[in-house]
Amino acid sequence: MIANPLPVRPANFSRRIDAAETSAVREILKVTEKPEIISFAGGLPAPEFFPKAEMAEAFSRAILEDGEKALQYSTTEGYAPLRNWIATRMQAKGMRAEADNILITSGSQQGLDLLAKVLVNTGDKILVERPTYLAALQTFSLFEANFITVASDDEGMDVDDAARQLRQNPDIKLIYLVANFQNPSGTTLSLERRQRLMALASQYGVRILEDDPYGELRYRGETIAPIKSLDEEGLVVYISTFSKTITPGLRVAWLVAEPTIYTKLSIAKQATDLHTNTVSQFAVHRYLTEHDADAHITKLCGVYGERCRVMLEALEAHFPAGVRWTKPEGGMFLWVELPAHLNTTKMLPDAINAKVAFVPGAPFFAPSLASVRPQNFMRLNFSNQTPERIALGIQKLAEVIAKNEQQ
Amino acid sequence: MIANPLPVRPANFSRRIDAAETSAVREILKVTEKPEIISFAGGLPAPEFFPKAEMAEAFSRAILEDGEKALQYSTTEGYAPLRNWIATRMQAKGMRAEADNILITSGSQQGLDLLAKVLVNTGDKILVERPTYLAALQTFSLFEANFITVASDDEGMDVDDAARQLRQNPDIKLIYLVANFQNPSGTTLSLERRQRLMALASQYGVRILEDDPYGELRYRGETIAPIKSLDEEGLVVYISTFSKTITPGLRVAWLVAEPTIYTKLSIAKQATDLHTNTVSQFAVHRYLTEHDADAHITKLCGVYGERCRVMLEALEAHFPAGVRWTKPEGGMFLWVELPAHLNTTKMLPDAINAKVAFVPGAPFFAPSLASVRPQNFMRLNFSNQTPERIALGIQKLAEVIAKNEQQ
Repeated sequence: MIANPLPVRPANFSRRIDAAETSAVREILKVTEKPEIISFAGGLPAPEFFPKAEMAEAFSRAILEDGEKALQYSTTEGYAPLRNWIATRMQAKGMRAEADNILITSGSQQGLDLLAKVLVNTGDKILVERPTYLAALQTFSLFEANFITVASDDEGMDVDDAARQLRQNPDIKLIYLVANFQNPSGTTLSLERRQRLMALASQYGVRILEDDPYGELRYRGETIAPIKSLDEEGLVVYISTFSKTITPGLRVAWLVAEPTIYTKLSIAKQATDLHTNTVSQFAVHRYLTEHDADAHITKLCGVYGERCRVMLEALEAHFPAGVRWTKPEGGMFLWVELPAHLNTTKMLPDAINAKVAFVPGAPFFAPSLASVRPQNFMRLNFSNQTPERIALGIQKLAEVIAKNEQQ
Repeated sequence: MIANPLPVRPANFSRRIDAAETSAVREILKVTEKPEIISFAGGLPAPEFFPKAEMAEAFSRAILEDGEKALQYSTTEGYAPLRNWIATRMQAKGMRAEADNILITSGSQQGLDLLAKVLVNTGDKILVERPTYLAALQTFSLFEANFITVASDDEGMDVDDAARQLRQNPDIKLIYLVANFQNPSGTTLSLERRQRLMALASQYGVRILEDDPYGELRYRGETIAPIKSLDEEGLVVYISTFSKTITPGLRVAWLVAEPTIYTKLSIAKQATDLHTNTVSQFAVHRYLTEHDADAHITKLCGVYGERCRVMLEALEAHFPAGVRWTKPEGGMFLWVELPAHLNTTKMLPDAINAKVAFVPGAPFFAPSLASVRPQNFMRLNFSNQTPERIALGIQKLAEVIAKNEQQ
C-alpha cells in the first residue's frame, strides 16, 4: 500500500503489544480450512445445525417490526428484554441475578477484556490453571498481568495447589477458570472443589472469573452448580455466551456481576465499543422467545455427545500405548498427552501432510518463569466433524504419532 | 442481587478505571429519550430513514444463502469481500489502500480502543483539539494517556499551535482529530491545514489517527481530500464507519493502516473480541452491492442538510446577541458559544424542564493541568429531529438562555 514500505520511525508501539507473542501455529492452521483436511484444530460449532431458517426470520422480523430501535445506537448495558431473559436463566442455575446484574458483551472474549481493564494494573497476579484457555492468556497478557499457575487433573483445577499459591501470593487479584468442560482439557471442576475454591476466594478477598461457554453442552453425568451460585459476597464474575448454543457469528454474550464492579465494567465497555450489535440482540431475543431454544440445545447435545463418543472410541482403538486423554462429559474438546519425548508442535506439519489437524498444547500453558511449557500435549475438537470423519481422522493421527515415535 | 450489598473487600480496581470520570450529565440526559423532549443531545442518525426493507432482506438472504459462514466464527481481519469493497471506496478517496490494509472493527469506537492498545503506555502524550470527541478522550484516558491540547477555530485544528506543541513535546505519540464536520464543533479542517499537519507528522515521526465518521455527509461546499491520502509514509491510521451512512446498530466500521501497525492492531483485536459480528458484515456487503448505497447517502444529505439549515435559521432568529455558533458544511452537530459568564451544565436542568435538551460542552475539553474547562459551550445535534421540532426546540432553548442571562 505505501510507497516506502519501511516501517515508520520510530516504530514506537506500546510495551504490551511489543510483548505479545506471535503465533506461528496460527499461520500453519490457516490451511486447515481446506475441506480435504480433517480438522480437529478449531473450536467451531457444527454449522450444519445452525438454526438458519429461525434466525433468518428473527432478523427479518426484528428489522421490519422494530427496525427504528433494532438498527439504532443502543445502551451500553444491552437490550433490556434480553437482559431479563438471561437473568431468569441465571436464576434457574441458582444465581441471585437480576437484569441489572447482566451486561451484554460482544462475545465472551470481550468479557475477558473488560474484566482485565477494570482490574489489572501492570504486574498484577492472575491465577490460572495449567493448561488454560489460550485467548484468556492473550487478553490478560495485553494488560501486562503476571500469571501464577496451578496444576489441574481430571477433576479440573487442583484446589490444594490453588490454596498453596494463594498463601504464597496473597496479592493475587483474580482467579480465572473454565469450570465446565474446560478449554482445552475438557475436564469439569467437581462440586466439592467449587465449594473449596469459593471459600478460598472469600478467605483471601480475591475475585473469580468463571468463564462458562460450554455449560449447557453436557452429554453425560449430572449438572454441577456454577461457582457464581455459591457466591455470597459478589466476588465472582460469571461470563457466558450464545456462541455455542445458537451461533457464534452473532457475537452476543453476557456477564453477571455485582453492582460495584458492574458499574466499572459498563464504563469500560462504553469506551471499548459503545455497545454490542443491537440487531443481533433483538434477533437473539426473538429466537429465544419464539422458538424452542432448549429443544435445539438438546439436539446439539445429542449430536456432539455422539461425536465425542466416536472420538473416544477411535482413540481407544488406534492410539498407541503410553498416550493418555481426558474423557469429557460435555463441551467441544478433549486433551491428549503423548509420551514426554514427543513434540506436538513439530508433529503438526506431518499431520497436515496426512490431511489431519490439531492444536499443539504448548500455548495453553501460561508463560511463566517457574515452568517450561510442556510440548507433548494436543487439543482435539470433536464438534465440527462428522462421526465418519472423526474415526478416519483419529486413525490418520495415530499413524502420524506412530511415525514420530519411531524417529 | 447479593445478600450483603457492601462492596467486596478490597475494591481493588485498576488505576485506569479508578481514574475514569463518571458523568453526571449522562444520567441527566437519560430523560431525553422521552418523546415530549426535543433532544439535540444525542448523536443519533434519523431512524425514519433507515433502509429497513433492504436490510431485512440483506440479513435474511445472508443467513438463508450463506448461513453456515455468515453465522459462524470468522477471521479477525473481517469478511474479505467487504474489505475489498471498502478498499475500492478508500482508493476513490485517494488512499493507496488494498484489502490487506482494511481491518473491520466493531464500530469505530473500537478503532480508538485498538489504536490506544497498540500505541499508548501510561503517561504517553496524545495531541487533541480543544474541543474534541468526548468518547475518544474516555478511551485514551483508560490507557492513562496525557493530553496535549491545541486550539481550534472555524477551520478546525490550529496547526500553528500544533506545531508549537510538537516543538515543545517532541515525544507526542499520536495526533487525534476528526477532520470533517468535527464532533462536537461541526468544523472542517482546510486542505492547506491538512497538508501542513501531515508535514508536521512526518517531521516529528508522529502518527495521526484520522477519525472520519461523517465524511460522506457533506451538504455544502467541496469535498476535501482525507489526510490519509496525503500520507507517503504510513503514519496515518484512518477510521470510518457505516453507522452514519447505513445504520449504527450493526456496529460495522473499519480502519485503514500500513502493514506494520496493521499486524499489531489485528493481534489486539483478536484479544479484544476475536472478530466483528459476522452476519452484519455479510448483510452490509449485500446491501452495498445489491442496492444503491450512494443514492441513500444522497437522500440522507438532503434530509440532514435541510435540518442543519433550519437549525441555523432558528439560531439566527431566536438566539440573543453575544452568542456564537459554527456553520457546519456537513455532519450532525454544531457548537454554540454563550457569553463566558453562562454555565451550560447548570443550565441543562432548566432546559429539560422546558422540554429541550443539549449536551453541555465541558466534557469535550480534555482534562489537562494547563487549562480549566470552559463552561459556556453546548453541542447541538440536528440529524434526529424534524425541521418543525428543530425550529420549536431552538426557540425554547433561546428562552432558557435568556432566563439564565437575567439571573
